[in-house]
Amino acid sequence: MPRYGRLGLPLYEAMYSMRAIRRMRPDPISDEDLEIILDAARQAPNGGNAQPWHFLVVRGEQEKATLAELYHEAWWAKRADQGMEGRDHPGLQNPVSRSAMRLADEIGGAPVMILLCATGPGAGNAQSVIPSVQNLLLAARGLGIGGTITTLHPVVDARVKTLLEIPEEAQVVYCIPLGYPRGRFGPLNRKPLKEIVSEDKWGATPDWIE
Amino acid sequence: MPRYGRLGLPLYEAMYSMRAIRRMRPDPISDEDLEIILDAARQAPNGGNAQPWHFLVVRGEQEKATLAELYHEAWWAKRADQGMEGRDHPGLQNPVSRSAMRLADEIGGAPVMILLCATGPGAGNAQSVIPSVQNLLLAARGLGIGGTITTLHPVVDARVKTLLEIPEEAQVVYCIPLGYPRGRFGPLNRKPLKEIVSEDKWGATPDWIE
Repeated sequence: MPRYGRLGLPLYEAMYSMRAIRRMRPDPISDEDLEIILDAARQAPNGGNAQPWHFLVVRGEQEKATLAELYHEAWWAKRADQGMEGRDHPGLQNPVSRSAMRLADEIGGAPVMILLCATGPGAGNAQSVIPSVQNLLLAARGLGIGGTITTLHPVVDARVKTLLEIPEEAQVVYCIPLGYPRGRFGPLNRKPLKEIVSEDKWGATPDWIE
Repeated sequence: MPRYGRLGLPLYEAMYSMRAIRRMRPDPISDEDLEIILDAARQAPNGGNAQPWHFLVVRGEQEKATLAELYHEAWWAKRADQGMEGRDHPGLQNPVSRSAMRLADEIGGAPVMILLCATGPGAGNAQSVIPSVQNLLLAARGLGIGGTITTLHPVVDARVKTLLEIPEEAQVVYCIPLGYPRGRFGPLNRKPLKEIVSEDKWGATPDWIE
């Protein structure tokens, strides 16, 4: 059995318990586990099998600390774009925002951050690499490792590229912290199927949806 | 055990054999199987849990036939954008292009086409719904059903929206034919990990990658 045989949990168990993990223990992720996760990521579909993805694993102490500072700045730059400044802003008091705010403070405590990059510019390249992030997170889940999808902000883009020597023509699509969860994996909170599925005409809810 | 318990195959088996299926038998997909596939899709991560996705299932005879004609037109419009016109163009003689060309002819023979839509405009909404397509295809694989990710083209956008009564502000992100494969599921052809993974600096290949 090749190494990926360690991803033996049932597909439904991975999918139905893979909630976003934003609080992580500092315990390291082994090289073998990272390789299994990245190997799974590259199995994902992509446009014309061009595979325009690059996975930049950040776990050097200095690189991770600086990237964490830039992530913190990017997070607050996004809030400023939305007209929300300061930790006490009323728009930031809901649980999702508070959890994301804490991640912006603590992301450097994750043992690994992976930058999912597209090797070329444009929306097409970015879209083509995104399915791989779902394989990446499902495989991590299969090994008991959690994470979440985050984005950076144009205000830090040049500095992130300089820090990690990312070529000008590449794009940083997502920043994915990974680590063993402090909390638990568990069920997801999603809209009912009836609200998000139509048949043949938009808004026509099929009678076979419960 | 809820219905999703039918997705009991090992995670690695789904990921490592889920190649693009472009030739399908016309056999119908049951309502129950479609519901399992769509229920898995909505478990995917998405920005801020806003879930800006809508799954438009097309299997009515007339809607599917018209959508298939529009898909064919869109496929050739994309080729024209790339400077390739006519079935005999040298750029279309490789196996991937020939397979895609055949799909453009035959897509109406798939028992189901699903349009993955974003409920709002902009690149952010489109990116946010994309991980769901990977859950959708993995769940289909778990039920022995194949498919592939395709895109349409702006030249048919207005007609697709009129045909299926898709609101102006929504985006059609992907068109996904689904059906039981004529060929087999099987291993995927991907670049070596060494070419697509770096550690701490772009281009620095980690020594733990085989």
